[in-house]
Amino acid sequence: MTAVFTGTSELEAELERVMAARTAQAAAYGERFAEHWSIASACVRGGKLLRPRMLVDAFDALTSDDGSRVARDGVVRLAVGVELLHYSFLLHDDVIDGDLVRRGRPNLIGTILGRHDPEDPAQTGVAASAAARHWAQTSGILMGDMLLAAAHQIFATEAMPDDVRLRLLALLDRTVTETMLGEHLDAALGDLVLDGDLATVLQMTRLKTATYTFELPLRAAAILAGTTRSAEDEIGCVGRHLGIAYQLQDDLLSTFGDPEEHGKDAYSDLRTGKQTAIIAYARTTDAWDRIRPGFGDPGLALADADAVRGMLVDCGAEAFAESLVRDQVHAVRLTLSTATGIAPALAAYVDDLVAELEGRRS
Amino acid sequence: MTAVFTGTSELEAELERVMAARTAQAAAYGERFAEHWSIASACVRGGKLLRPRMLVDAFDALTSDDGSRVARDGVVRLAVGVELLHYSFLLHDDVIDGDLVRRGRPNLIGTILGRHDPEDPAQTGVAASAAARHWAQTSGILMGDMLLAAAHQIFATEAMPDDVRLRLLALLDRTVTETMLGEHLDAALGDLVLDGDLATVLQMTRLKTATYTFELPLRAAAILAGTTRSAEDEIGCVGRHLGIAYQLQDDLLSTFGDPEEHGKDAYSDLRTGKQTAIIAYARTTDAWDRIRPGFGDPGLALADADAVRGMLVDCGAEAFAESLVRDQVHAVRLTLSTATGIAPALAAYVDDLVAELEGRRS
Repeated sequence: MTAVFTGTSELEAELERVMAARTAQAAAYGERFAEHWSIASACVRGGKLLRPRMLVDAFDALTSDDGSRVARDGVVRLAVGVELLHYSFLLHDDVIDGDLVRRGRPNLIGTILGRHDPEDPAQTGVAASAAARHWAQTSGILMGDMLLAAAHQIFATEAMPDDVRLRLLALLDRTVTETMLGEHLDAALGDLVLDGDLATVLQMTRLKTATYTFELPLRAAAILAGTTRSAEDEIGCVGRHLGIAYQLQDDLLSTFGDPEEHGKDAYSDLRTGKQTAIIAYARTTDAWDRIRPGFGDPGLALADADAVRGMLVDCGAEAFAESLVRDQVHAVRLTLSTATGIAPALAAYVDDLVAELEGRRS
Repeated sequence: MTAVFTGTSELEAELERVMAARTAQAAAYGERFAEHWSIASACVRGGKLLRPRMLVDAFDALTSDDGSRVARDGVVRLAVGVELLHYSFLLHDDVIDGDLVRRGRPNLIGTILGRHDPEDPAQTGVAASAAARHWAQTSGILMGDMLLAAAHQIFATEAMPDDVRLRLLALLDRTVTETMLGEHLDAALGDLVLDGDLATVLQMTRLKTATYTFELPLRAAAILAGTTRSAEDEIGCVGRHLGIAYQLQDDLLSTFGDPEEHGKDAYSDLRTGKQTAIIAYARTTDAWDRIRPGFGDPGLALADADAVRGMLVDCGAEAFAESLVRDQVHAVRLTLSTATGIAPALAAYVDDLVAELEGRRS
């Protein structure tokens, strides 16, 4: 989803500035404290900036005609706050899942662990030891906390009228709450505290991903552009449907897409036992007894994974998840067609997002 | 440290209100989400409210004569924000340390783990399993995140003049940064990434504990009371020295005090290998070779622990740590005697805090 977004260099420059300022703030207490911020800066730099670009682009679409309530450079700073929030969520998600890799490269935790060179005689016994893993995981928790706090600081200190600031902070509050409840559901499903039925999986998808990835940037743009609350709610509704569609599409690509194109490990969702709508549907079919043994097996061989994928197609799980994506896209269009407060330029922008989503291969 | 504080019931009522509102916010997404907030409310209820009481009492001492910049009920709400921040730090600290108990009772993580009743046939195999521990630890991470965000929301949304709000948010930013760097040092010492020399241990003590426990409430009171920046810095300096003295005193009580009085497990600091100024001093003495084998041994027998304690006294580590407490108290009095912006009522309040500290047995 890159074609419809603009203004990346402005966002990259501001993100770079914020991370450099945080690195310098830490370094003032001693050089040893700057290292993890430097690693975090490098990790953040690799992001696609999907969320902040959406915020700025939606803001631009909403303010082509009327004046906004907040200066555009302030909007860019707030958009970077959304990226820090995203990275904070990713980091704690990685801690929870024990992941050391993201987008094929070591994440912050993996990088810190990797710096304990097992060949270095001074570090003998530390590398890959329980202490080194604990140190890397702890660093992930603390960096996630600092980024969560930093995102809140950006929202709280940007100059804007009081009413706009309070609306924006209430949105941030709801966003953090919903994302955490989504993570809670995800963990409950993974740790077998809850059954992975479709309703629960869809609630998890909405709360954990749709809220902060689509609803937050679009609603924030509406608030900053000075729309009414009812227009913000219409835009939020569009964001929610887009977000659910996006995550369902993501699950479809991870399970059935071409790894050459989407860049993730083929079958990693199957091997880690990720609870998706695809799996929730498959559970309700006769095929589940044959799918279940391979699902969540970290050592699942390629041929067996191919077979599981075939069964997921044959039992109708792929087609079912695709129909869910179409339902959500239909709901987006329905919302747009009946909305009274969504400006034509924003509707056109949302159409572009839907077209990107439908043509997505990665 | 209870005698000098007042106004507890007001703080307790506001804390109860905030936690009930957060529980209700979660319950709106489904009853299953309210459970962890209920547990968190019960855990928070057990706190001594040291920090919020200090904030309100210092504010009252500073505003007996002149008008403040913020209404007193707003100050109570902000003080409760400081308590949420404290609890957020405690929770992530418990996650990092793998602790299941605080003040002799199960903490949030231990409570969630305990609800997986091993006698319940429906949960066979889940209790005490890796999945149950993962679920409880994950819940600790997520609740800590929500509390950290909630504390920021309180600071960001309380009505006050812009300049006061920005000063307060800058203080919160510095506080979170320093506490996280202190946790970072603590983890580095525990995971043997760093040596536990005295300078590092004292820096850790200051950053991890003194900043948010004493400097934050006292500086916040000064900002809310409308003092000058230089007066705030004088009060902050007092808070820093008091905070370091308090933590050193805490370490002395845990190691040499009467468990009947301080309520902690005797020798838990020795058994967990806590890096304190006492230990940092002992490392520099000839006694260390005899102390080292028992230090950090979870299975250290009572008689051996008694022997280690005796060696810590004999090598001068206890007397050294006591002299550090006296140094910090002396620095508090020196700051008070040369300060130009600390009102007499606040100086009297600080004197009371020092007297409490010196007479402390728990």
